[in-house]
Amino acid sequence: MSNKPKAVILISGGLDSATTLAIAQEQGYECYALSIDYGQRHRVELKAAQWIAESFGVAEHKIISMSLDRLGGSALTDKTMAVPENLGEGIPATYVPARNTIFLSLALGWAEVIGARTLFIGVTAIDYSGYPDCREVFIRAFEKVANLGTKAGVEGSTFQIHTPLVKLSKAEIIQQGIRLGVDYGLTVSCYQADEEGKACGVCDSCRFRIQGFQEAGVVDPTRYKK
Amino acid sequence: MSNKPKAVILISGGLDSATTLAIAQEQGYECYALSIDYGQRHRVELKAAQWIAESFGVAEHKIISMSLDRLGGSALTDKTMAVPENLGEGIPATYVPARNTIFLSLALGWAEVIGARTLFIGVTAIDYSGYPDCREVFIRAFEKVANLGTKAGVEGSTFQIHTPLVKLSKAEIIQQGIRLGVDYGLTVSCYQADEEGKACGVCDSCRFRIQGFQEAGVVDPTRYKK
Repeated sequence: MSNKPKAVILISGGLDSATTLAIAQEQGYECYALSIDYGQRHRVELKAAQWIAESFGVAEHKIISMSLDRLGGSALTDKTMAVPENLGEGIPATYVPARNTIFLSLALGWAEVIGARTLFIGVTAIDYSGYPDCREVFIRAFEKVANLGTKAGVEGSTFQIHTPLVKLSKAEIIQQGIRLGVDYGLTVSCYQADEEGKACGVCDSCRFRIQGFQEAGVVDPTRYKK
Repeated sequence: MSNKPKAVILISGGLDSATTLAIAQEQGYECYALSIDYGQRHRVELKAAQWIAESFGVAEHKIISMSLDRLGGSALTDKTMAVPENLGEGIPATYVPARNTIFLSLALGWAEVIGARTLFIGVTAIDYSGYPDCREVFIRAFEKVANLGTKAGVEGSTFQIHTPLVKLSKAEIIQQGIRLGVDYGLTVSCYQADEEGKACGVCDSCRFRIQGFQEAGVVDPTRYKK
């Protein structure tokens, strides 16, 4: 048995959550990585999550499946909707209704079972793509739910949700990750990556990532499609 | 197109949520019923949910599947844990970690997609079996999460979570349901019902139900195993 405190870290397979995992590990947590197979069209994301979990030697990596695509309403799960290739105004079509609420709920459930009281989620509010559920105010509201809606919370434990990236720019995230030894070549951010994890280079997520590596002054290890 | 406001109602197949659906319909909502297949050992619950949704002629009934049983930690999903047959102290082994947080998150996601701003959940706090996520204080905290963590909330809509049963005893719930024409013979409350929906008569859930019918002065239509 490890004496380290346990933490559940949501990892998507992307750059932000890989960095979050690295930070949780550096902070001394025994890391339990959780990924959600929610019918996302970029399936290779889940493979990337496995590569990342392995590269960090996490205590356990669990993938929970759910048919979130059946709810529709997002370009990320609905194959009849197009992934936008130009950053528009407002909340983009890639927004998945209530996604982080759902993911945090699952992380909370697992945390309660294994005796972890700390959750990590790699939300960023600066270049946050306009997603409401990436904001600090949302995370703090969820923390209250966690403490009111669980047996552990009622029995006196306190759940804390750590958001180490929330005030960092993409470039700062990359600089932190490089310092902590994250192999960003393993991560997949692209909304329409191919089966090997090669990125399109044009979707919102790719644009943020490319710009991040440029601003960080770091060579971009991303593998792009031709 | 109906002019009625839409509502998403979480229905488990049990007595409480069937009554909640009847109340939502009486209040004039176009009802979208949501059930979750979370690997519960009492599989017939989902069949009962379908019978109930049909009997009310809901606009749509969706069943979302998720591998919540992989998280473990509950007698309701972990077949190696026993379902308690005597009401003990504290929060029982049938507690599923973060269940209502997870279910409300999914209801919220679907509500956002279909343009519903009202959710119904049949939690009861009086004979609530000791589950922390059935309390009003938890529900109100979740409402805040709903309004902070969604596109609709950020854009000015307000989500409301209705808990019409929260102050009712089991007997009062049954009396309301009878008035609204709920066929309780279709509902399954038992944690270890057989494939036809026949109840054990001894688990916590059966005990509450039996007592409820007695106190309500209503003939119990439940089909029991021998």
